[in-house]
Amino acid sequence: MTDYTPTPEDKFSFGLWTVGWQGTDVFGPSSRPLLDPVEATYQLAELGAAAVTFHDDDLLPDEADRDATLERFEKALAETGLAVEMVTTNLFSHPVFKEGALTANNREVRRYALAKVLRNIDLAASLGAKTFVLWGGREGAEHGAAKDVQAALDRYAESLNLLCSYVKEQGYDIRFALEPKPNEPRGDILLPTIGHALALISELDEPSMVGLNPEVGHEEMAGLNFAQGISQALWHDKLFHIDLNGQHGPRFDQDLRFGAGNLRGAFWTVDAILGAGAGKAYDGYVHFDYKPPRAEAIDGVWDSARSCMRNYLILRERVQAFRADPDVAAALTAAEVETLRTPTLADGESLADLRGASYDVDGLAARSVGMEALDQLALEHLMGAR
Amino acid sequence: MTDYTPTPEDKFSFGLWTVGWQGTDVFGPSSRPLLDPVEATYQLAELGAAAVTFHDDDLLPDEADRDATLERFEKALAETGLAVEMVTTNLFSHPVFKEGALTANNREVRRYALAKVLRNIDLAASLGAKTFVLWGGREGAEHGAAKDVQAALDRYAESLNLLCSYVKEQGYDIRFALEPKPNEPRGDILLPTIGHALALISELDEPSMVGLNPEVGHEEMAGLNFAQGISQALWHDKLFHIDLNGQHGPRFDQDLRFGAGNLRGAFWTVDAILGAGAGKAYDGYVHFDYKPPRAEAIDGVWDSARSCMRNYLILRERVQAFRADPDVAAALTAAEVETLRTPTLADGESLADLRGASYDVDGLAARSVGMEALDQLALEHLMGAR
Amino acid sequence: MTDYTPTPEDKFSFGLWTVGWQGTDVFGPSSRPLLDPVEATYQLAELGAAAVTFHDDDLLPDEADRDATLERFEKALAETGLAVEMVTTNLFSHPVFKEGALTANNREVRRYALAKVLRNIDLAASLGAKTFVLWGGREGAEHGAAKDVQAALDRYAESLNLLCSYVKEQGYDIRFALEPKPNEPRGDILLPTIGHALALISELDEPSMVGLNPEVGHEEMAGLNFAQGISQALWHDKLFHIDLNGQHGPRFDQDLRFGAGNLRGAFWTVDAILGAGAGKAYDGYVHFDYKPPRAEAIDGVWDSARSCMRNYLILRERVQAFRADPDVAAALTAAEVETLRTPTLADGESLADLRGASYDVDGLAARSVGMEALDQLALEHLMGAR
Amino acid sequence: MTDYTPTPEDKFSFGLWTVGWQGTDVFGPSSRPLLDPVEATYQLAELGAAAVTFHDDDLLPDEADRDATLERFEKALAETGLAVEMVTTNLFSHPVFKEGALTANNREVRRYALAKVLRNIDLAASLGAKTFVLWGGREGAEHGAAKDVQAALDRYAESLNLLCSYVKEQGYDIRFALEPKPNEPRGDILLPTIGHALALISELDEPSMVGLNPEVGHEEMAGLNFAQGISQALWHDKLFHIDLNGQHGPRFDQDLRFGAGNLRGAFWTVDAILGAGAGKAYDGYVHFDYKPPRAEAIDGVWDSARSCMRNYLILRERVQAFRADPDVAAALTAAEVETLRTPTLADGESLADLRGASYDVDGLAARSVGMEALDQLALEHLMGAR
Repeated sequence: MTDYTPTPEDKFSFGLWTVGWQGTDVFGPSSRPLLDPVEATYQLAELGAAAVTFHDDDLLPDEADRDATLERFEKALAETGLAVEMVTTNLFSHPVFKEGALTANNREVRRYALAKVLRNIDLAASLGAKTFVLWGGREGAEHGAAKDVQAALDRYAESLNLLCSYVKEQGYDIRFALEPKPNEPRGDILLPTIGHALALISELDEPSMVGLNPEVGHEEMAGLNFAQGISQALWHDKLFHIDLNGQHGPRFDQDLRFGAGNLRGAFWTVDAILGAGAGKAYDGYVHFDYKPPRAEAIDGVWDSARSCMRNYLILRERVQAFRADPDVAAALTAAEVETLRTPTLADGESLADLRGASYDVDGLAARSVGMEALDQLALEHLMGAR
Repeated sequence: MTDYTPTPEDKFSFGLWTVGWQGTDVFGPSSRPLLDPVEATYQLAELGAAAVTFHDDDLLPDEADRDATLERFEKALAETGLAVEMVTTNLFSHPVFKEGALTANNREVRRYALAKVLRNIDLAASLGAKTFVLWGGREGAEHGAAKDVQAALDRYAESLNLLCSYVKEQGYDIRFALEPKPNEPRGDILLPTIGHALALISELDEPSMVGLNPEVGHEEMAGLNFAQGISQALWHDKLFHIDLNGQHGPRFDQDLRFGAGNLRGAFWTVDAILGAGAGKAYDGYVHFDYKPPRAEAIDGVWDSARSCMRNYLILRERVQAFRADPDVAAALTAAEVETLRTPTLADGESLADLRGASYDVDGLAARSVGMEALDQLALEHLMGAR
Repeated sequence: MTDYTPTPEDKFSFGLWTVGWQGTDVFGPSSRPLLDPVEATYQLAELGAAAVTFHDDDLLPDEADRDATLERFEKALAETGLAVEMVTTNLFSHPVFKEGALTANNREVRRYALAKVLRNIDLAASLGAKTFVLWGGREGAEHGAAKDVQAALDRYAESLNLLCSYVKEQGYDIRFALEPKPNEPRGDILLPTIGHALALISELDEPSMVGLNPEVGHEEMAGLNFAQGISQALWHDKLFHIDLNGQHGPRFDQDLRFGAGNLRGAFWTVDAILGAGAGKAYDGYVHFDYKPPRAEAIDGVWDSARSCMRNYLILRERVQAFRADPDVAAALTAAEVETLRTPTLADGESLADLRGASYDVDGLAARSVGMEALDQLALEHLMGAR
Repeated sequence: MTDYTPTPEDKFSFGLWTVGWQGTDVFGPSSRPLLDPVEATYQLAELGAAAVTFHDDDLLPDEADRDATLERFEKALAETGLAVEMVTTNLFSHPVFKEGALTANNREVRRYALAKVLRNIDLAASLGAKTFVLWGGREGAEHGAAKDVQAALDRYAESLNLLCSYVKEQGYDIRFALEPKPNEPRGDILLPTIGHALALISELDEPSMVGLNPEVGHEEMAGLNFAQGISQALWHDKLFHIDLNGQHGPRFDQDLRFGAGNLRGAFWTVDAILGAGAGKAYDGYVHFDYKPPRAEAIDGVWDSARSCMRNYLILRERVQAFRADPDVAAALTAAEVETLRTPTLADGESLADLRGASYDVDGLAARSVGMEALDQLALEHLMGAR
């Protein structure tokens, strides 16, 4: 049996807020004591992570302790060799952001939000982070008239343009990654899916500086296929970062550990990350953004963190075995999967050639497509039954 | 009580396949006799429609009758004054398209699909249609490996580029409108939402020639807010056409008459169409794409068609009253809705001004946002209770 | 225009935790200051409520203040004339219940939970409440093996049997009402729908003492039709209490004010409460269990509470007008709706009569069912357009 | 590697309509030729099935061929040794049932539906089937007023009482199994979940003669946990039959082969069937009710049928290994899972003992629950990684 022990080469990364979540929800207060983020950093290193990420408020909740905490944190990074690969700004917890942040109706709030991001970008740059995530969890509304969507998109674009110009001016080596989510905590959140965020990016002043940070559960809450979604993001060269976790379809945001929830989806997610055979692949950090269930004590917190990585390694092994299996290669050919890479019109052909041709429509209608056979091979690889 | 009788100025339009649906579903055969599409055209005119639309296979299922049917159809258009405002190609019914059409793995199928579209574009042009819709209902897969998503997007883009170049060459005054849908009949359909389709368009050779034809139910099947979605499409100048109907959230595609299903959503949809107060508005045809329930006989077919228009007129009246109500104006101001149109950074300001400012964070956190009061006004207008 | 001012005869009731919700969610701390529950009682009386309800922890969070608070509360009840119509026990907030309460795997927790309920039943009886609600928000699991479902149902039944025997022994005039919910905060909650809870009740020692307290949003989170669900509960004589609020289908528990969310569903809910024409009706308190959105300040809290009652009154008026409309009566007859009340087999008939008869299958298949026409009448009554 | 070849002892059973589905859906006609049901019977025997099931209309669509087909079918049963373990009546395809069958508003339709069921019960008895399934796919409505739910439940109960009395009179060894479904093809179907059907049964004249036939996808369309649902059905001694297939949450009814869709759910479903460790188990036929995707030709039909059984065998092996693993036993104990089988009140104890006790609430709140560790073991067994 393979050893599924993570190494730094696996580039596993954890948000400090994940293991640090204390279990507060709408129906009850925290169930776990505060976990010192610097202690968490040491622990994650020991478990095999290669990097950590954080919101400003996770690591540095108190202005008074800021310098001392940063010093302790940088010592931990140095001692463990962990990188800070991504930083993000909390624009959703403090009630000042209750009605939005970069797209709040109130202009002072928008200005304060931007100032908070700017300060945090400086911190990200100083810690060497190359990715800066923006999740607009409170950008949206419960009801129709409360938010002028067109104006909100103007403000979203304005903010991103300002942030990009700041990063350029400062000469930081940082790219932005937008994180879409359809709802929760707001009734309907702006940029609800991978697609909507990609569309916004295409209208920015510096589209090349802004990409995506899709999260498994966020797309699955809309019933969407995550692997298909990140494949489209890769096609647009916009998969800048990724958030792996687990979810059971349209319901509240479960933030299960990676592998729990939709396991078949997790298999195809890893496959898409690796390029799905012959496509563009993702080569960034494999970042887990999940929540250890509120019922768990601290032992369950670390169990779940360990399992996120272990499940990724198991699934990666299974995906690689699937893609290397000669029976799979034969099934892919039988299903004409690679044929889709051949342009529909050949070089030198014109549409007239297409229109003039005759087609064996009934024969084509009756052809075998071989999808079930192919999928069964994948399922058996996933279950380790081949 | 207002008279809600439709007039041509209302620009109501119906797909011939809507009233023509015979009730065949997965669980049973047709429950209604064939409705002659030319007869349906006369009937829709009598009900107050201004235009009709069709798939090639709706109007012209048989090659042998093609010329005769077209002649009868053009006579009906001339006699009724109805326009053909949009045409679309059926790339999903014939089993030749069972595994996809423009993105089928099989290249002959892709070529046949393109040829079918091209022929239909000529027909659309000859009938004066300005919009050509493409719904890729069979483009997708049930399982991960069966479709190389990146290759499929290459083929989608290739097809659209070829079609645009054809329309330009022919000098047709036609724009394309993509219709997104998340699933059904395929397990996961490519370009599942408004956002994903907008993103694809941004990569095309002629993005200005391609926009969207969003459908209420298709977005609501993903739990997404339709009014918010078409507002983003308007923001991108991409709302080329619209499909109105009704749906009860994530489940099978119900295609209820407009107004049934999510009524509050329908109110905000009409508001978004009209520009939501001060934004870009949609001025195209108001197109209904729904299915009279299988249980209904022909009387129910016409009742439901009539009600689609009537509900639109009632809702338009309610939206207009809402936007004209001084109490609403005051509530919008109290909620600072218009303030969102003011840029976050004023002319002449720099980010340093933002960062240097001091913010009354606690005061802002405690502010009244007035959303519930505003929404209650909207709800009362919808119910005719003001 | 009708005056929609609530009166005590309307029997409106509010949970003290509704207006008292401070806005804490998974993504942020409270946004509103603590609202004194006794003050809230006075306010709700002023708004027109007839009763209040509470969890033990809402009213009496601190043991030390228990007597003093109760005294102040009883004074408020006396001064306002409000009743305490229902009491419920908080078995979900304290982390002791993190893995369940009456069905926790840990036996001490189960015993503590029962003791907490018992004490609260005494309080309920002393305040004259006739309904005691049990919502098992933490009864369930995220994963398969963590909960032995059959054993859990044994414990659920054991607990209910013990509670019923206690109430009988004490001679209290109290009935229990179970509140189903499919998920959130647990991944999957036991007794997820109205149906599952009804089924459990049929196995209890004293089924007549236990009924339901269904909540609009809880059923709609499973995509179920709430009006249909409470109609089944009425058919079983089990609609002991009701929780009205608003929701947008399968997603997180939105707890919108009544009328927001699925407005058509709200119309049919009021109709079902009133007996849907000719069936059993609900004559208990009309209880609102919702949450003023976190973005709102205290003004929004009271606006939303006021609107819950106002929307009920508007909808009740519309439902009554619908049921009184002669056109509706004709449409119901055309749709043969009342015919369903006629037994399929007449008195004196046998199955042989059925089997021996001949049926005009094709004629029946072609019949008009008139559902769209009938539903359009309902929709127009809802919109005040008739 | 284990051999996963089915044997008759596995008791696998297939509906003739599953492999016989020709691919007709709302968006297109059939994609596969008619499959002779008798030929399908031979094929399923060869693949390893132990039994077949059918609707009257699957096997015997034409009255004229009835006797000849039955003769051929009985010969096939004799030659293959296959049993007919279940029979069901098609009350949903013919448009006569477009508005319902046993609960149609039209009384003639209800009488015709009952007669159709009675005739089919005689056939079931003559073929030795012990289970008779009733799926009410058209029983329901799209809109509120169209169906008097309380009257419909009266008629449902009347029908079931009549059918039970008939079976008793005839002395048939047959039990009925209701199949719940939330929606599709009707907007909202009566008895939408396992729970609602269980509740109805408790009100019948002969509740012991009526149980359930739950289907994986039908419960998952409502976002419900299928394993939890059938565990409740087992607890009520009502799991008379089962329909295994695959689904991706709330959306259209996908009817994927067993194993596809929610794989984790499939693992827990097999575990629940086997008794989930120490509970009541299901010992009936393992029945597959799925649809080979419309895109597949006949090779894909048989591939998918084969895979249903193979996936069950793989999962059964994994579940058995999970339940036999000493590490799992330890984890179950650590999570106190078996403790839930211990009554909360011991023999001889009274509620006073509970109330008088003192509880270490904070200690209990801080306890480890060990759910993540336990679930990870399950996940690794599923993936064959232990």
